[in-house]
Amino acid sequence: MTTQNLSSPQNGSAHASAPAVPVRVVDLIRKKRDGQELSRGEIEGLIHGYTHGEIPDYQVAAWLMAAVLRGLTRAETAALTDAMLHSGQVLDLSEFSVRKVDKHSTGGVGDKTSLVLAPVVAAGGLLVPMISGRGLGHTGGTLDKLESIPGFTVNLPVADFRRVLRGCGCCMIGQTAEIAPADRKLYALRDVTGTVESPYLICASIMSKKLAEGIDALVLDVKTGSGAFMKKKEDAAFLAGLMVETGQRMGKKVVALITDMDQPLGMKIGNSLEVAEVLEILQGEGPADVRELCLELAAWMFHVGGAASSLAEGRQTAQQMIDSGRGLAKFREMVQLQGGDLSAVDDSGRLPRAKHTLEVLSPENGYVAAIDCEAVGTACVILGGGRERKEDSVDPAVGIVLHKKVGDPVGAKEPLATIHYNSESRAARAKQLVHESYHISGAPPAEARALVLRGVITGSGGH
Amino acid sequence: MTTQNLSSPQNGSAHASAPAVPVRVVDLIRKKRDGQELSRGEIEGLIHGYTHGEIPDYQVAAWLMAAVLRGLTRAETAALTDAMLHSGQVLDLSEFSVRKVDKHSTGGVGDKTSLVLAPVVAAGGLLVPMISGRGLGHTGGTLDKLESIPGFTVNLPVADFRRVLRGCGCCMIGQTAEIAPADRKLYALRDVTGTVESPYLICASIMSKKLAEGIDALVLDVKTGSGAFMKKKEDAAFLAGLMVETGQRMGKKVVALITDMDQPLGMKIGNSLEVAEVLEILQGEGPADVRELCLELAAWMFHVGGAASSLAEGRQTAQQMIDSGRGLAKFREMVQLQGGDLSAVDDSGRLPRAKHTLEVLSPENGYVAAIDCEAVGTACVILGGGRERKEDSVDPAVGIVLHKKVGDPVGAKEPLATIHYNSESRAARAKQLVHESYHISGAPPAEARALVLRGVITGSGGH
Repeated sequence: MTTQNLSSPQNGSAHASAPAVPVRVVDLIRKKRDGQELSRGEIEGLIHGYTHGEIPDYQVAAWLMAAVLRGLTRAETAALTDAMLHSGQVLDLSEFSVRKVDKHSTGGVGDKTSLVLAPVVAAGGLLVPMISGRGLGHTGGTLDKLESIPGFTVNLPVADFRRVLRGCGCCMIGQTAEIAPADRKLYALRDVTGTVESPYLICASIMSKKLAEGIDALVLDVKTGSGAFMKKKEDAAFLAGLMVETGQRMGKKVVALITDMDQPLGMKIGNSLEVAEVLEILQGEGPADVRELCLELAAWMFHVGGAASSLAEGRQTAQQMIDSGRGLAKFREMVQLQGGDLSAVDDSGRLPRAKHTLEVLSPENGYVAAIDCEAVGTACVILGGGRERKEDSVDPAVGIVLHKKVGDPVGAKEPLATIHYNSESRAARAKQLVHESYHISGAPPAEARALVLRGVITGSGGH
Repeated sequence: MTTQNLSSPQNGSAHASAPAVPVRVVDLIRKKRDGQELSRGEIEGLIHGYTHGEIPDYQVAAWLMAAVLRGLTRAETAALTDAMLHSGQVLDLSEFSVRKVDKHSTGGVGDKTSLVLAPVVAAGGLLVPMISGRGLGHTGGTLDKLESIPGFTVNLPVADFRRVLRGCGCCMIGQTAEIAPADRKLYALRDVTGTVESPYLICASIMSKKLAEGIDALVLDVKTGSGAFMKKKEDAAFLAGLMVETGQRMGKKVVALITDMDQPLGMKIGNSLEVAEVLEILQGEGPADVRELCLELAAWMFHVGGAASSLAEGRQTAQQMIDSGRGLAKFREMVQLQGGDLSAVDDSGRLPRAKHTLEVLSPENGYVAAIDCEAVGTACVILGGGRERKEDSVDPAVGIVLHKKVGDPVGAKEPLATIHYNSESRAARAKQLVHESYHISGAPPAEARALVLRGVITGSGGH
C-alpha cells in the first residue's frame, strides 16, 4: 500500500499560472472526513487521478464514504459534477440552431413519459438529444422499453446520434463509452461500497451525464413515494434543489418537478405494454395521469427551451402536437431512423406479447386505499421485465396491466390487475406480490394525492 | 468490481449451530454508515474475510471511514479487537506459573519507561512478555532504543521469545508476522485512507496486539499534551476508558493512567542517549520525572499482576528492585540473552556516540514557561534519531540532551539543551527547532503540571 500523490491538473484559465503543488490524496480524504470544503482544483485532481488509474479504489472509497456522511457543499457538488462531466466527451450540438432540451426522471414504475416527450417536444420545434438508462432494481428503463420495438437500436455512435437528430429533431440512445467515464467508474465503486445513497453523489452522477448531452435546458422529474428511490418528499425536494442549483452554477436552465410515485404511473407496466400505452397517449388517449404528467413536463420543456413564453403556452403547444398527430408522426420518424419496425408502431398488437395472462382478483368489496408501488415494480422484475443485476437481460413482452388505481371502487372477485407472463413459476410469485400490494378499504381514501406534489424550483440560468 | 459475499465463520460455541447465512459486505458497510450496530459475527466475518483476501481493500476502506465517522459501540470495539486478535497467533504462556503483565504507552518524546519496567517487574517476580513498536512521526520507539545496544536483537521467533522469558522473566521483541496479521493489513490501509485517527480503531489496534501476548493484566500509559498524539486530555481519557472496557470485556485486568506529555520525559531524547538514562534510573539515579513515572507504572504492574496487594506495596517493591540492583541485574540478563553487548550496559560511554555536539543557548534571563514537546521530538527525527516513514532507518547515536525543564530558572546565554549530531545541516535545522520550542518568561509558571494527570480507571477483570 503506497501513499498516492497527485498534481492538480491544469485548471482552465483561473489556475493556469499557479504552480502544480503535489497534493497527498490522504489529505483530501482527511479534509472531507473532518467536514472541511475541498477546492475545485482538489476535486478535479481527485476525479482526474481516479479516472486515469493514478488513485486506487480504496482511497476513493474512503473519500466517498466521508462525502456521504459529511455531505458536500454546493460548490463541491458543482465542482464534482463538472469534473465528472469533463472526464469524457461533452457533445457540441451548436450546429443545430434551435435550443436543445432534455428531461430526466429519477426513476419509477410505469413511467414511460420520455417516449412521449421526446417526439412531442421535437414536433414543437426544439431539439431533444436524449441519453437514457436501463431499468435497475424495481424501476423500468427507457432503453428497455424502446428495445421492445423490434429492430429499434439504442446503441448508436455519436455520428449516428447527430444524423437522427438532424433527421427528426429527437433521438434516444444509451450512454456511450465517451460520456462521463468517471461516473461509470465511480458508480461501480459506489455500488459495492455502500455509497450510492447520497443526494450529492446522485446529483453529480445525473447532472454530469445529462450536461454531457450539450443541452441548454433540462427538466427534472424527481419522483417520491412508495415506488421511488426517495420515499420521503423532503429527500426528493432536497435532491431537486441540489440538482437545480448545480445546473444553474454550470450555466444551464434547470427546473425540477417533484411528482408522485406512490402508485404506478398509468395502467401498464412492462416494456412492450408501456410502448403500447405511449402510442395511446400520442393518439390523444391513454390514462389521465400519464397524459397529464406528459403535458406538464412538455409544457416545462417548451418553456425552459424558449419555445413558449409561459407554461400555459407550452401546455397548449404540447396538446396541439398530440391533437394534430404531429407527435405521433415524429415518433414514427424516430423509430424508423433508429431501425425500428414501423408496423409495431402502427399496430401495437405487433409488439412482443406474452404467451399467457392471469388475473389478480380483489378479495373483497371496497375502494383501493393504496398500492405498494415498489412491490408492483418488483413483480414486473420477477416476471422478467426488469433486471436485478446490470448483466441480466429482460423479456420485452411480460408485465402487468392494472385495472384499478388508488381511489377506484372495486367489487369482490373483480380483477385488480392482469399479469402477462411467459413462466408459470414466475407468474405465481408475481401474482402474490401484486395481490399483496393492493390495500382495499371500506371507504374511499380521504383525498387524492396530487400528481405534481410540489411546485417547480426554477434556475435562472443565464450565462 | 464485483459484490463480495461472505459467510459468517464458525463463531465459537454460541453460533456454531446457526446456519451460515451469506452476508453481503456492502450491507455491513451500509449498516455502519447508517449508525447501526454490527453483530459480533458480522465483524468477525469482515475481519476474517479481509485478512484472507476475500474482501477487497475498497470495501474495507469504506467501512473504516464509516466507523471513524459513526463510531463503534463498546460491543463492536470489543468484537473488532477480538477478531483482530484471533486473526493470528495468541501466545499461550500457561507453561509459566507466574502472572504475565505488560505495559503499553500511546507514544511520546523521551519515554523510555518500558526499558526500566520490564526488568524491574521481572525482578519482582512477574513475567513480562513485551512486544513493542518502533518510533513513528515525532515519537520514539522502544525497539529503536534497544537496538542502540550493539548486538541486541529484537527480531526473535516465538521459540526464542519463550527461551528468553524462561531465562530471565522478561523479553522485549518486535511484532512477529504471526501476531495480529489483521492489524498489520488494516493499519497499512488506514494509513493511506485517512482512517487512523479514531479512538475505536486505535483501541482495537493496540489491544489486539497486546492481548496476543498471552498476558493476564495490562497497564496502559495514555499520554496527553503537546508531545502526545492526543493533545487534549478529554480525548486521552476517552481512549483510556475505551481500552480499559475492551480489556475487561475480554476478561483481562486492565488499568490506564493518563500522564503528561506536555514536555519531554526525562532529560535525554534519542536512542542511545535514552538507554544511558535508563541505566541511570536502574542505578537509582536519573531525572525525577522518569523515575517517578517508572515507580508509578511498576507499582500498578505489580498490583494488577497480583504481586502486590496495594499500590503502595507495589511501589515499595519497585523501589527495592532498583535499590538492590536486582532490576539492573535483570536488565543485564535480558541484554545478554538477546545478544546485546554487556560492556555497553556496564559502561554507557560504550554506547554509540554522535561525533559532534552543539549547545542551544537561552536568549534571555527568566524561567522555562513551556517546551513544545512535539517540536523537540521532530528535532530528534531531523537529526536522524527517528523516522518519518516506516522504511527509514535510524541513527542510534544522535539526539538531544535537555538541561532545563518547565519551571527551571535560566540565565541569558545559559545552555538549554545540547544537540548530539552527525550531520551539520541536520544539526542546524534541529537547533532552530529546539530553540523555538523553548518558551522563556519573566516569572516562574503558576503551577507545575502533574505527571499523572488523572487517576486510574480500573477494570475489574474477572473471568
